[in-house]
This record gives sequence, structure tokens and C-alpha cells, in this order.
Amino acid sequence: MKQIYFTVGPSELYPKFRIFLDAAIDNKIVSISHRGQQFAELHKDLGVHLKQLIGIPEEYSVFYSGSATEWMERIIQNCSEVHTLHFTGGAFSKRFYETANALGRHAVSVNSRTDQSFCIEDIPSGLTPELICLTHNETSNGTMIQESFIKNVRDKFPKAIIALDVVSSAPTCSLDFPLVDCVFFSVQKGFGMPAGLSVLFVSPRAIEISLILEKERSIYTGSYHSFASLLEYEKKNQTPETPNVFGMYLLNEIVKDMLVTGKEAMCREILLKAKLLYDAVSNSPLVIPCVENIAVRSQTVIVANVKTGSKEIIQACKAHGFIIASGYGSHKEDQIRIGNFPSHMRADAAELASLIQGGIF
Amino acid sequence: MKQIYFTVGPSELYPKFRIFLDAAIDNKIVSISHRGQQFAELHKDLGVHLKQLIGIPEEYSVFYSGSATEWMERIIQNCSEVHTLHFTGGAFSKRFYETANALGRHAVSVNSRTDQSFCIEDIPSGLTPELICLTHNETSNGTMIQESFIKNVRDKFPKAIIALDVVSSAPTCSLDFPLVDCVFFSVQKGFGMPAGLSVLFVSPRAIEISLILEKERSIYTGSYHSFASLLEYEKKNQTPETPNVFGMYLLNEIVKDMLVTGKEAMCREILLKAKLLYDAVSNSPLVIPCVENIAVRSQTVIVANVKTGSKEIIQACKAHGFIIASGYGSHKEDQIRIGNFPSHMRADAAELASLIQGGIF
Repeated sequence: MKQIYFTVGPSELYPKFRIFLDAAIDNKIVSISHRGQQFAELHKDLGVHLKQLIGIPEEYSVFYSGSATEWMERIIQNCSEVHTLHFTGGAFSKRFYETANALGRHAVSVNSRTDQSFCIEDIPSGLTPELICLTHNETSNGTMIQESFIKNVRDKFPKAIIALDVVSSAPTCSLDFPLVDCVFFSVQKGFGMPAGLSVLFVSPRAIEISLILEKERSIYTGSYHSFASLLEYEKKNQTPETPNVFGMYLLNEIVKDMLVTGKEAMCREILLKAKLLYDAVSNSPLVIPCVENIAVRSQTVIVANVKTGSKEIIQACKAHGFIIASGYGSHKEDQIRIGNFPSHMRADAAELASLIQGGIF
Repeated sequence: MKQIYFTVGPSELYPKFRIFLDAAIDNKIVSISHRGQQFAELHKDLGVHLKQLIGIPEEYSVFYSGSATEWMERIIQNCSEVHTLHFTGGAFSKRFYETANALGRHAVSVNSRTDQSFCIEDIPSGLTPELICLTHNETSNGTMIQESFIKNVRDKFPKAIIALDVVSSAPTCSLDFPLVDCVFFSVQKGFGMPAGLSVLFVSPRAIEISLILEKERSIYTGSYHSFASLLEYEKKNQTPETPNVFGMYLLNEIVKDMLVTGKEAMCREILLKAKLLYDAVSNSPLVIPCVENIAVRSQTVIVANVKTGSKEIIQACKAHGFIIASGYGSHKEDQIRIGNFPSHMRADAAELASLIQGGIF
């Protein structure tokens, strides 16, 4: 029976995933040493390809870990001594804020407005944050920060380090990345891979600040995963610990394949499928879009409020071969979430959209 | 051409790995939600099976992360406020010690003697360590701590938390695990899996101490990977972050298969192959065993000093279909290392042993 995961991550695998996987096993790439030449070449290639696909400046460092959650901790440890500023509109931006609090930082949080947008005027006056944390795409509630807002934040705080969580919008987020210093994502969403690998890009300026914090201010920056340690190994095309080599190989294959398709074509396809899905939830007898303000609607995570209960809709979709997600946290029962990633075929999205629009049963 | 990885991790894959991998992809286990019932069942099963195989008390918690290196940091953060004690005989025990220093602990290190053993009399008098860190099997130099020494440490410090790194000796290490509080390993060695997943067992006493440090002493214990946070999710059969679900599924399948073979049979096989390999390096014209003291020789990581250069021996083995490792760090050129894990077949070990004993070429 057909079973297509339109969940928000982990989600459907990249269409050619099985081919890349088989090659990895046949070539015994999973047994190679992470201190050898073959790994160093993979490490180098992957960094180049990722920057090229996403649009990250060449001079940024590329670091790897097991999860994006770790990057929240490491960014705060490496880029701030006292003051952080957060724009919180959902569970993941709140997690970033709470991590800063747990680390003893003086963290200030600006909430989204009733229309779910952020406004530069809402920032309390007199702040001089060392680090500003932004969640580009909120997997929990389907909102997305506008690029113009990121530009406004940069203009207001030209000297601050800006960290941008693109966990569920990469690689189909077209942003002015040189504006920000730290950018991170996980592979189980837009890259159509199993979970267990996460990537962080870091600007030379953020590296410089982390070195000052560690060497001159004696701040704890994360031992083996301090930027200094990560950088030391990156220079050798290695990682401090034995990394997820399997995942890195698969990611490199997928990114190379995406480069052939081209990011522009991928983004067009995402927008097209997002329109199909938003039209469906707007015209369905079962649901309405959760995010009313079109300007801040996510293109990759479509969230809808259900009129009855989410369970029935999820079950009905499943019976038709589509796995969709429930709402996040307290919205488990009254919302559904649909992932829209490059791995989702347009024909499948159209079929799912038509089911939802038609009332499914 | 045959290519068998007798490296020390990443190493050869578990013989049935491909079967389990194919099933994982066919069942779409990699796409399931880490907040759903199917994952909770996997999480529960894996914990039960791991404890059963390794011999960990039922009441210990089981936590997951991307690498064993992270556990060094988290153990120190969660089990000590000031005083740690380390027994350093190689690169990995030193890393544990250096992590404690980086975290600002007052870390005391006791070095191994010239015969590479540790002695309880070498511990400076007057110490009251909160946490004692032991590396059971040193992947860097092929030494192994004797179980009697672990017992002596426990007798001398009945109240301390003892952490034991079994990264390259699990699951074929038969130790009195209730003596220790934290036990951790990675899957790319004895479990024959790709790297990117690590397991930590924690005693209720260590959990209790971590909660006191966090709640009463306001020590930073690691935000999402504090024992408190890990425990909160463990109770729901979940993990704080999206974990390496793929790896957890594969590990569960491998551990179930190992339980059928039985740990005793696996240990016997390891000892038998270790004897083959040690006999070979002892009688070879090319190498001599690095660890002279038989009592502290590792059974899973066989290290030999080379009489000429390691490169030629590694190349010659490769030409016969066997990949072995160079020495660690500064011993890259003058040592070789051979892994001896459950995934290595006896016939292959015998062939490799015979090659080395005969001078290879």
C-alpha cells in the first residue's frame, strides 16, 4: 500500500535516496576512517556543495553535529557573554530563548504580534545584544519570518551576531545570507534524509568573537564543539569526534543532485505545491489555514486548524496513502501540519490537496 | 575485490547489516515521527535489549546522542561541581580529563605505570572526587583496564560517581556494571554500525546527583542534554531532540541478533580471534605487540609496533583485501592497529593473522 510521508520532518526520503544508499554500502563508505584522505575529500566536497546550493559565502565555516538543537546551545556559548535577543513566535524560537536562559545569559524576548509578524518597533529601547536569534521557519506553527525583517534587524544592530535557524526552510529559502553570521539546519526536512545530522555555517566574524570569548574572557564555549575546536578540525577537513560519515556521504550525493536541478527550479516547485496545499486547506470543509497573514505563511510547513478533531483527518489521509502530522504540542488535537519539501512530488501534493479540499472521505 | 575493514572503528559492518538496512527502508522507519507510538516502542525495546545484552541493571536510564565525545562533556557537567579524578593511559582518557579542565573542574589525573597498568596506590592522598572517569579500553594504544582495578576504585571511593568509557569494548566486555554509574559507547565499533549514534547508561544515583547540581547548586548541566531533560523525555520513551531514528532501529535489530548468539559465545569468539592476532604479531618479522603486559592488553584493539614503517604494512594488507589502521596521533608511522569486533569473522581474522605472521608480501 502507498504510504507517502507529508510530515514536517522526519519526512519522505529524497527520491534517489535508495540509489545513494546502495552505493554507500557497496563502496563501504561507512567503514572508512574519519581521519583518512577519503573522508577529508568528502568533507571538503560537501562544504563546497552546501554553500553553493544554499548561497552561503565561501569564507564561512561549515560544522557538523547530530542535531540542530545542539547548535542552539553552541551558538549561545560561542557568540555571547551576557546579552542575547530573541524573536519568539513558536516552540523552536522559544527553545532557543530558553537555552540562552539556561546558559545564564540575560536573554530578552520579543513576541510576534497578533498577526504573527515581528516588528522592529517592538524591540525594547536601549538594548545592545551581542547575539540575536531568529527562527526563519517555525515548524511548530507554520509561520515564516520575512526577509525584510531580517534586513531591518541587521540595520538596527550592525555589530551583533545574528543566528538564523533554517531547520525546516533549507535549502529552498532564498535569503541574503551574508546578512547573518550563523545559519543551521537538519537533514530530515528539506533534504529528505533520515535524522541524525545537522549543519552549521559560521561567518569569520562569529568565529573571531568566539575566540575572544574563549581565550580572553575565559567563557566556556563547548570543549570539543567550541567553534575553536570545530575550526581546528575543519582546517584539516575533519571533525573533532567521529561524525555521521554515512549521513555526510548521503547528504553530499543529494546536494549534488539538487545542484543539477538548481535551487531556483526547486524554489518554484515548492511555491507551486504550497499554493496547491494552501488553496486546499482554504477551501476545505474540514480545516482552515492557521496562519491568516499571508505575508508570514511558511511555504514548507502548512498548518491548518481543524474544525472537528485532527485524529480523524490524519486517519482518513492515511487510508488514502498520505501520512500527515498532528499539531505541535498543545495543538496536537486541533491542528494538522503538512510538510512541503523537495522530496514531495507535485502529483502527490496535488492528490493530497484534492483529498483535503474535497473533505477526504 | 575483497575489502574487509579490520580497522578500530568505524570498522566492518555487522554481517546482517544490509538485511536490517533494507527492511528499515522498506518499512519507511526513517520517516516516522519521533513523537509517535511507533518510535516510543522502538525506544523502549532498544533500552531493554541493550541492558540485557551488556548486563546493565534494569533501573539505569538509557540516553542517546550523536557521539561518545558528547557524553564526556555531559557526564562531567551532570556529576561534578568541583572535583574529578581521571586515570589517563591514552588519548581518550586524556580527552576526558581535558574536558573536565575545560569545564573548570579541578581535575586530577593519575597516569598509568611503565607497564601500562594503573595502581590504586598511585592516587594522591586526601582526594574526595565527586566523579571518577575510567576508559575501559583505550582505542589509541590497545590497553585495557582490569576489572579488579575498577573494583579497587569503587572500594576506595564508595560514594563517588564512576563513569566508564566502553566505547571500543562494548558489547563484549564482561564487567560488574552495577559497580559503576555511567557507562557509554558508540555503535561504530563493537556493534558494526555506521558512526553517528552513542548510548549512555546512567544509574539512579547519578541522576539524583545531577538533579541536585542543577536545581540546588544552579550548575549548568547541559540544557536539552542535561540528565534532567534526557530523563524527562526518556519517561515518555522519547528523546529531547530528533534523534538518529535510523541508527536506533538498526542497533535494535543488531542487538536482538546478538542476544540470539548470546554474549558468552560472542566473548569467547573475541578471545579466540584476539589470541590468533596477538600470536601473529608476536611471531611476525614485521611487528611486535605494543602492550607487553599481557594483563592489560585489549582484546578488541590490537596494537603493534612496526619495525620499519606502518605505511608499507597497511598497503600490503590492503593488497590482500584487509584494511587495518595506522597508529594513533604521533604513532601514525610506527604502529598499526587491528580491530577485533563481533563483525569480524574468525576465518578472516585467521587469514589476516597468517599474513602478518608470514611477513605478508
